[in-house]
Amino acid sequence: MRIARLGPAGAEIPTVVVDGTHLDLRPVLGTPGTGAGGDVGPAFFAAGGLDLVAAALEAGTLEPLAGAEGLRVGAPLARPGKIVCIGLNYRDHAEETGATLPEEPVVFMKDPSTVVGPFDEVLVPRGSTKTDWEVELGVVVGRTARYLDSPADARGHVAGYVLSHDVSEREFQLERGGQWDKGKSCETFNPLGPELVSADELPDPQDLRLSLSVNGVKRQDGTTANMLFGVDHVIWYLSQFMVLEPGDVINTGTPAGVALGLPDAPYLRAGDVVELEITGLGRACQTFGQA
Amino acid sequence: MRIARLGPAGAEIPTVVVDGTHLDLRPVLGTPGTGAGGDVGPAFFAAGGLDLVAAALEAGTLEPLAGAEGLRVGAPLARPGKIVCIGLNYRDHAEETGATLPEEPVVFMKDPSTVVGPFDEVLVPRGSTKTDWEVELGVVVGRTARYLDSPADARGHVAGYVLSHDVSEREFQLERGGQWDKGKSCETFNPLGPELVSADELPDPQDLRLSLSVNGVKRQDGTTANMLFGVDHVIWYLSQFMVLEPGDVINTGTPAGVALGLPDAPYLRAGDVVELEITGLGRACQTFGQA
Repeated sequence: MRIARLGPAGAEIPTVVVDGTHLDLRPVLGTPGTGAGGDVGPAFFAAGGLDLVAAALEAGTLEPLAGAEGLRVGAPLARPGKIVCIGLNYRDHAEETGATLPEEPVVFMKDPSTVVGPFDEVLVPRGSTKTDWEVELGVVVGRTARYLDSPADARGHVAGYVLSHDVSEREFQLERGGQWDKGKSCETFNPLGPELVSADELPDPQDLRLSLSVNGVKRQDGTTANMLFGVDHVIWYLSQFMVLEPGDVINTGTPAGVALGLPDAPYLRAGDVVELEITGLGRACQTFGQA
Repeated sequence: MRIARLGPAGAEIPTVVVDGTHLDLRPVLGTPGTGAGGDVGPAFFAAGGLDLVAAALEAGTLEPLAGAEGLRVGAPLARPGKIVCIGLNYRDHAEETGATLPEEPVVFMKDPSTVVGPFDEVLVPRGSTKTDWEVELGVVVGRTARYLDSPADARGHVAGYVLSHDVSEREFQLERGGQWDKGKSCETFNPLGPELVSADELPDPQDLRLSLSVNGVKRQDGTTANMLFGVDHVIWYLSQFMVLEPGDVINTGTPAGVALGLPDAPYLRAGDVVELEITGLGRACQTFGQA
């Protein structure tokens, strides 16, 4: 299944996309604060929301959303409970940043309020001279994961996958006092979408092509086959240090080609256009503005 | 005003405490997903919930919560949108850890799902040998703060203050791959409470005594007067890097006396009892267990 959310920011209507048609999910989502929580968020996943959608599809009760083609595309899930990120998880990216290869996953966090839609404006922060791009495979947690026994147990805890842009400010991240979070949580710094693709539709998350271009120039072109720590390992590993909950998002790292690693370090400025894509997860495009 | 939440975890009843009596706040909180959001969480603060409580107190319409004294004390606010933490923010603590004094605030994050009540069990993580304590002044954000002009603008964005325990695993934080978040987000690692004290009741957050003892031995005894970066500076500073939202919590750092800085490094084990207190914010006590 492919889940989307269409409409103005903060008032998106959840849909399931079948053959390009957006079917309105409001009848299966219940009311806010109860049952499936009224939106595609933590309560939705905790209530087995994807199974409710599958049942509604099976029953044939869903209606097309009128006027869908004219609506803004929002992030396909409402505010995550947390966003956990894996750093330096592709050999070529670790090398381009001058870092040594990590012996175990590097973990940091991103403010969940940074989520915006896949075609929304992204803001270069005030005072920023090093705003950078990072195309990433985003994993959406479907079931609580706590001290998993092994990576083999991980996959059953995945609701699905989403194209994620882990926008980063390198000066804030690396030159302003020690911890990366400072350069990862600026306003609008995590475009997600266009669609949440359920795990059953993407049986091998380690065989996906990721690419990103800036103003038409291809900058990143990698494959999730080159992750140092694959999705299953990352979920198992994180579950030893924190509780992963339904609706959490994990950004699994970026391949080579970010501005930080390029000879001329062509950091982003207002007016720049970033296009990104992952096989099977769709395409996103963000024009940058100035905060 | 002093806000509390009483009852089983996940089903706490919000109250306002007047002369030691808990008055039931459910009549002013509305329903989940609308208005004041049904609980003391982000929607409550965004809707000016403290003003609603003040108005209800003024009108004299609130009733005592029956059986309050027999109920568990929960965290005084429901799940924050994010928890942002300031590291090494007291000179004596920075020195005891061997760190150089930061030139600007060190920022990291903590999983918001780590919040538990002030008398709840805290779990030593599996595989942990370096679980440590940190008494901290917690600041609860009341109004959205984005690119504030100066620290003088900060105070109007504070809803109130809360006693916070920033439990930390030092091996996970410092010896497992680079970023602190890994040792800060373990299950149950952020006891909050007993009460959220509104900003008007605590006019000077830089004149509070913080103390913590372990199994009856005093370990931390400091004052917020010794913060390197005070509350107003921290809020202004953070607002340059992220958007602070109603219901977010800021842990403002800990004074000297943590296990990491003690000669015999007496890290916490199951069965240990930690008591902590901040002037005007009350007292908390947690018995540690094993995850």
